[in-house]
Amino acid sequence: MALIVHKYGGTSMGSTDRIKNVARRVAKWHDAGHQVVVVPSAMSGETNRLIALAKEIQNPPDPRELDMIASTGEQVSVGLLSMALQAIGKAAVSYAGWQVGIKTDSAFTKARIQSIDDKRVRADLDQNKIVIITGFQGVDENSNIATLGRGGSDTSAVAIAAALKADECLIYTDVDGVYTTDPRVVSEARRLKHITFEEMLEMASLGSKVLQTRSVEFAGNYRVPTRVLSSLTDPLMDLAEEAKSGTLISFEEDNMEQAVISGIAFNRDEAKITVMGVPDRPGVAYHILGPVADANIEVDMIIQNQSVEGKTDFTFTVSRNDYNKALEVLEGQKGELGFASLIGDAKVSKISVVGVGMRSHVGVASQMFRTLADESINIMMISTSEIKISVLIDEKYMELAVRALHKAFELEKE
Amino acid sequence: MALIVHKYGGTSMGSTDRIKNVARRVAKWHDAGHQVVVVPSAMSGETNRLIALAKEIQNPPDPRELDMIASTGEQVSVGLLSMALQAIGKAAVSYAGWQVGIKTDSAFTKARIQSIDDKRVRADLDQNKIVIITGFQGVDENSNIATLGRGGSDTSAVAIAAALKADECLIYTDVDGVYTTDPRVVSEARRLKHITFEEMLEMASLGSKVLQTRSVEFAGNYRVPTRVLSSLTDPLMDLAEEAKSGTLISFEEDNMEQAVISGIAFNRDEAKITVMGVPDRPGVAYHILGPVADANIEVDMIIQNQSVEGKTDFTFTVSRNDYNKALEVLEGQKGELGFASLIGDAKVSKISVVGVGMRSHVGVASQMFRTLADESINIMMISTSEIKISVLIDEKYMELAVRALHKAFELEKE
Repeated sequence: MALIVHKYGGTSMGSTDRIKNVARRVAKWHDAGHQVVVVPSAMSGETNRLIALAKEIQNPPDPRELDMIASTGEQVSVGLLSMALQAIGKAAVSYAGWQVGIKTDSAFTKARIQSIDDKRVRADLDQNKIVIITGFQGVDENSNIATLGRGGSDTSAVAIAAALKADECLIYTDVDGVYTTDPRVVSEARRLKHITFEEMLEMASLGSKVLQTRSVEFAGNYRVPTRVLSSLTDPLMDLAEEAKSGTLISFEEDNMEQAVISGIAFNRDEAKITVMGVPDRPGVAYHILGPVADANIEVDMIIQNQSVEGKTDFTFTVSRNDYNKALEVLEGQKGELGFASLIGDAKVSKISVVGVGMRSHVGVASQMFRTLADESINIMMISTSEIKISVLIDEKYMELAVRALHKAFELEKE
Repeated sequence: MALIVHKYGGTSMGSTDRIKNVARRVAKWHDAGHQVVVVPSAMSGETNRLIALAKEIQNPPDPRELDMIASTGEQVSVGLLSMALQAIGKAAVSYAGWQVGIKTDSAFTKARIQSIDDKRVRADLDQNKIVIITGFQGVDENSNIATLGRGGSDTSAVAIAAALKADECLIYTDVDGVYTTDPRVVSEARRLKHITFEEMLEMASLGSKVLQTRSVEFAGNYRVPTRVLSSLTDPLMDLAEEAKSGTLISFEEDNMEQAVISGIAFNRDEAKITVMGVPDRPGVAYHILGPVADANIEVDMIIQNQSVEGKTDFTFTVSRNDYNKALEVLEGQKGELGFASLIGDAKVSKISVVGVGMRSHVGVASQMFRTLADESINIMMISTSEIKISVLIDEKYMELAVRALHKAFELEKE
């Protein structure tokens, strides 16, 4: 007997018929003797409907009140799923985050979980009940409801699994696992049976949208074995087979197949800004990026050129949505910063090769650069971490680059 | 400066534009220097939508889970109204029942409020905030959400007013007050400026649907001055005028215009059942009505005839919806009860004249009976209380009877 946490996304909860299917799958796990806790998302479209309603009233909406409203989607889901389980003869009980002590900070609309009290859930599990808990939300120290932001139910599920010391957290989603790259771009892309949480973290933050980044951090910090698997299979499929399907996020020490490179992530929607001829004095990075951060714009890659005659060029990337705003912010600081001009390019993409094996293998970077050179693709910026190398290239070469790299690193092979 | 509780129904909250109008009205009261607490219902149609969703999954739905789901409608409303107030420059904060200590028993879907902790609300009011609290719900001792049943937001508003010792509880609704009878039946029906809570209680329980019966009980028990008034007026109408509009539910000792009769209530959808030739022994009423109550059927009027040769006839009324079920229940008890036959009539209506003045005036009953006799309307059953006389008549005479009584008691005159 194991303690398993299931998480289901909005698509899986999208209609009463689908909710009944989720119940059948959960019941199957319970029938096999497992203790099961389920974290469902809001029914698909519901969170958007609630946010749209809020924006008709106040735009931007007050974050605390928005969370009050947006959190109701998950509350409806847990009640419905509990009923669906009861309807097929299972003892089930639903809880909102505040009812099982999911405490967060007060950063409304993007709160972080601080603690979870497992007492009530354990008591129910001990009574053979299936426990269903709202994802996406908790309460701050003053009992205000706070949501965790988009995709927050992934984080809730992993955090609950951590608090309960669950044997595994199963994230049921509309893809059947984590791939070496997006199969829509490279048809030979292969599903990974395992990925380390560090690789997954890089993949998630680099634009592979399978899991919310923070849920992966949680899985890593608390060493929660987390599996991404398909919710589109027959709910009554063989349990043993289901239990080893998808992709397991695990820990390096577990020592599995250690490929040098596990996958290629990409982010199409980048934009690049260069501040030309800015006087090179201490604090120049802070003076440029401070106002950008104050405008709530996230900066990704950063390069500062060697200075020439006391002047330097400073380049960074932002999400394409923030491009115009970032230019405006900097234009407003021209007097202060004393730069010569701003140039930018909103048609760039980032490609990253990711793999823990990189640590012990030299030559990954040169292999990557040679592959791109062979395709005559110019590299605009480079950034590296211990387990990833990212390059910025012209958007129009993105698919070509991903395919070439996927082949060069032989990712189609097991 | 007064502390005022406002309650708005689902129609008033039915769209974002209407919610903005509610905010304007609330802000007007706050601008005039009052402390204001608002209890809004769910947006019209929302509670029905949620219940329908639940029934698609499990029918009948588990009461605890149904409350988990149904309570979200009000949670959305409070958040939206708080935003609408903020959008016009007011400091406002919303709370779900559990956040401000609204404790109920565990009778899910028909819970009763047991206590309210006013601390948090008072602190906000002292900071000049407008406080918005979900109607219809609270939590039991185990933090399970429990709803108060249909119309429960009226009760929430009055209970909150009682806990805060509010100066007045204003129930904004789609009628402009309490009338001597239904204006759709009697065009001369007149709005009452005052009604005692006892009269209002009779009117509410007799089918006048202006307020939930339990909210009137609360108003009476805690002596909360409660006013029913229109939500359809211009939200920016003169406050002094608005403050004295509608109908004030007050207390007898306040000594106002004391008409003998305040109003005529009626309930069209009654049904009558007679158990014929039942052996008249001690406990016969219990043996007949026990199984009916066990089937969750509410019994209203009851008559037991003088027994003849050790046999009696026993007649009672039920809501027309429960008529067939009640007949079935009794048929199933035929052997046990030993009655000769069951006869029934599902086309009967109840008419009641209500008034505290009745206590000190004789002749109300005879006036009522004469008026009906003059119209050749046969009376099937009679039941009386200190401040009301009810009669059961053939449904087809209902409107005629109401009009004749309204005229006979001169209710069209101030």
